[in-house]
Amino acid sequence: MTPAQTALIATLRPLLGERGIVTDPALIAPWEIDWRKRFQGHAPAILAPADRAQVQAILRAATEHGVPLVPQGGNSSMVGGATPPADGSALILSTRRMNRVRRIDADGRTAVAEAGVILADLHGAAEAQGMRFPLTLGARGNATVGGLVSTNAGGTQVLRFGTMRGLTLGVEAVLPDGTIHDGLSALKKDNRGYDLGQMLIGAEGTLGIVTAATLRLVPAIAASATAWVGLADPAAGLALLRRLQAATDMIESFEIMPAESLAAAVAHLPGARSPLAGAHPWHVLIEAVTGDPAIDPAGMLETLLGQALADGVAADAVIAASKAQAEAFWLLRHSLSDAERALGPAVQHDIAVPVDAMPRFMVEAAAACDSRFPGTHASGFGHLGDGNIHFHVRAAPDTDRDHFYAEQAATITRFVHDLVMAAGGTISAEHGIGQMKRDELARLSPERVATLRAIKTALDPHGLFNPGKLVACA
Amino acid sequence: MTPAQTALIATLRPLLGERGIVTDPALIAPWEIDWRKRFQGHAPAILAPADRAQVQAILRAATEHGVPLVPQGGNSSMVGGATPPADGSALILSTRRMNRVRRIDADGRTAVAEAGVILADLHGAAEAQGMRFPLTLGARGNATVGGLVSTNAGGTQVLRFGTMRGLTLGVEAVLPDGTIHDGLSALKKDNRGYDLGQMLIGAEGTLGIVTAATLRLVPAIAASATAWVGLADPAAGLALLRRLQAATDMIESFEIMPAESLAAAVAHLPGARSPLAGAHPWHVLIEAVTGDPAIDPAGMLETLLGQALADGVAADAVIAASKAQAEAFWLLRHSLSDAERALGPAVQHDIAVPVDAMPRFMVEAAAACDSRFPGTHASGFGHLGDGNIHFHVRAAPDTDRDHFYAEQAATITRFVHDLVMAAGGTISAEHGIGQMKRDELARLSPERVATLRAIKTALDPHGLFNPGKLVACA
Repeated sequence: MTPAQTALIATLRPLLGERGIVTDPALIAPWEIDWRKRFQGHAPAILAPADRAQVQAILRAATEHGVPLVPQGGNSSMVGGATPPADGSALILSTRRMNRVRRIDADGRTAVAEAGVILADLHGAAEAQGMRFPLTLGARGNATVGGLVSTNAGGTQVLRFGTMRGLTLGVEAVLPDGTIHDGLSALKKDNRGYDLGQMLIGAEGTLGIVTAATLRLVPAIAASATAWVGLADPAAGLALLRRLQAATDMIESFEIMPAESLAAAVAHLPGARSPLAGAHPWHVLIEAVTGDPAIDPAGMLETLLGQALADGVAADAVIAASKAQAEAFWLLRHSLSDAERALGPAVQHDIAVPVDAMPRFMVEAAAACDSRFPGTHASGFGHLGDGNIHFHVRAAPDTDRDHFYAEQAATITRFVHDLVMAAGGTISAEHGIGQMKRDELARLSPERVATLRAIKTALDPHGLFNPGKLVACA
Repeated sequence: MTPAQTALIATLRPLLGERGIVTDPALIAPWEIDWRKRFQGHAPAILAPADRAQVQAILRAATEHGVPLVPQGGNSSMVGGATPPADGSALILSTRRMNRVRRIDADGRTAVAEAGVILADLHGAAEAQGMRFPLTLGARGNATVGGLVSTNAGGTQVLRFGTMRGLTLGVEAVLPDGTIHDGLSALKKDNRGYDLGQMLIGAEGTLGIVTAATLRLVPAIAASATAWVGLADPAAGLALLRRLQAATDMIESFEIMPAESLAAAVAHLPGARSPLAGAHPWHVLIEAVTGDPAIDPAGMLETLLGQALADGVAADAVIAASKAQAEAFWLLRHSLSDAERALGPAVQHDIAVPVDAMPRFMVEAAAACDSRFPGTHASGFGHLGDGNIHFHVRAAPDTDRDHFYAEQAATITRFVHDLVMAAGGTISAEHGIGQMKRDELARLSPERVATLRAIKTALDPHGLFNPGKLVACA
């Protein structure tokens, strides 16, 4: 521990107490590495404030002592965004004790949740009031509200409800100078200059600490229907999506995958089988949901998919006959990443291009990649309606794992990212920049990064907030 | 003209040509004063670029020569936001020549419009493709897309579709350092750090020049219905609104006014009469709209208002029987400001509080104001569902006009603003800060202004972009 860190902890101990300061290395260790074990950091202590006032006190003292802080919620970042630097220069500021759902307002359709509330718990709290928080993702058992806001998280329901930016009505935060941004009252109109709440959404903790958020709720699910459709190509998938969206606002998920990804998932999961009897080059999983008990989403899907089959837009389709069958469909989708990983080393890319450009991009980018890196194999699956796919490039058979990651992965990634930029897309659709994509962002968008750095430096002149993430500061 | 301005114009003349540089004082004069004639400025020239490349050239040259620029679209600011400083130190940068609607995509429900497109023209372009841009306001014949984005404009349809922030999917702008922010592709997911597009929305031209925007469209109106309802008090108004919103998503407008405002409008408009026969303390104007020809909004309103009458939530109600009658209802609403102005000098406030707090605020703030300033009379009308009202305080009878504005208005405004802040509200709901509210914002929210200034200074270190607006810079 540096002298400054020792002094900071001595200053804070009377306020935070024993529960608020963790220095036992065994207790710290799980939080020093990201969950995919890609980034190993080190922090001499975890500060765990119980409320906003304690966060404010920590920030003021950290500024005074010049000690950097790494905010951390569920530690489920995909880009090393919550992992401390390896040199031990920063302390972790954990939001997990600030875990109260302060309010569920079913009439006003809002929730106020503290930063440390785990997404699954927020789902439960909303359901207990007959409401739903309509964002979910694989890490729902770990990801926290503060991290979801700070990374503008996405997931499988963005198609209908948007990302966290669309679901976050107000933000409460402590800014680097120790002042409170109290934006929880969620005014429907408020034009007092730059929208600081919007600035904090997706800022990855580099501009201060989000302590709570006002979130949008929707009525609880009254009925849902899950369908599996076989298709000729991604263009047919987009055509089908446009048809469905023109006819109904119930479509929440529209997940596309190639036959090979489905085959990998079927092979990976014991007892699993493809939902459709025949072979199709592409597949989509569709979920339609309503909060109105008078509406029948399965009947709606049956009619619309029947028309799509008759018109040749879809090749085959089945609607899950039971909740168990629907869950089996989803299990296939959620197993795609694990199944592909089991096939060997691969490099993944969380990318987006404009929705209309995605069908072509999926096919052409994979072909370009295969051609440029002989022996490797590229494919993508994901959220077609958001223009967002997870684009994987698998190493050539028998490639040494370490060699692939050390020598080839970065070259492949730069190639993929160049394709994405040429298509007017983004190298980070859902996961943020963190430390993993920081230098790639600077390479591809130097002017953008200069603007980000100017803002960062203006608000955090000493570079104490999540150092090394998003933008490199002097 | 200062030597620097002369040098700047000489630099730009070969690029901009005769049409792009206006120096005739007679042609400049209308653009040196705001439309309400509250703020008189002076600019030795207007620069009128034809496209983004010319904007970029202007910004680079202005930075080189140290010449401040005041961006201006339709010059319809309510807060002096587009009026140049009186000392002639700045030139006007007019966006009006950049007036192309670049694209209307009916399938994708988006429009791409340049900054100088007038709102009414955008409405027309969308209608020609069977679509609608669902934001409108009194100045629709003057206000431009760039100004609407830069002030996060509101209007009478915010209840259903949100402000410009909710309707702006992407922003193209030239930043103070001359770099282009090209955000038009409107990626549905893009997490590459601070959302610069969101930062520019509502920035009032202080962080660069918006040159175009991608905007959300909705299907054209298939049918609409307009109702007038008499009520006991604003709380009944909010209860009625919540009922309607729980039953339908068609409610676009819900405008509340006290009996006295209605009476003033009736007296002001030749041949006008109250829509309801009886006397009611409060009134609301409701508009329900659908893009689906199969739906009957009038029937829906009739059923729901019938229930509200039966349950005692509403005291009386009438649905406009014709388009002419609906227009007569709206004319009353749109005449409120003029009618109140005709009664004598008054000070107006564009304020918002949380929606649930608005019914009580309307009544209690008016009473507090009347009590604090004997002889004056306070009342509010406006967008109840947005928590946004226009709160007017009329001078005591026989008060000298000049005396009122010079001596009393600022004191009254501070009192009203203090009430708003105590209620967790905002002193600028729709109109922005401009020069009119700049010092009030600094008085009430010094920490917020310090943060705004840090951002402003970081991106515009020489203070060349809309100087004197929003935040005072050293």
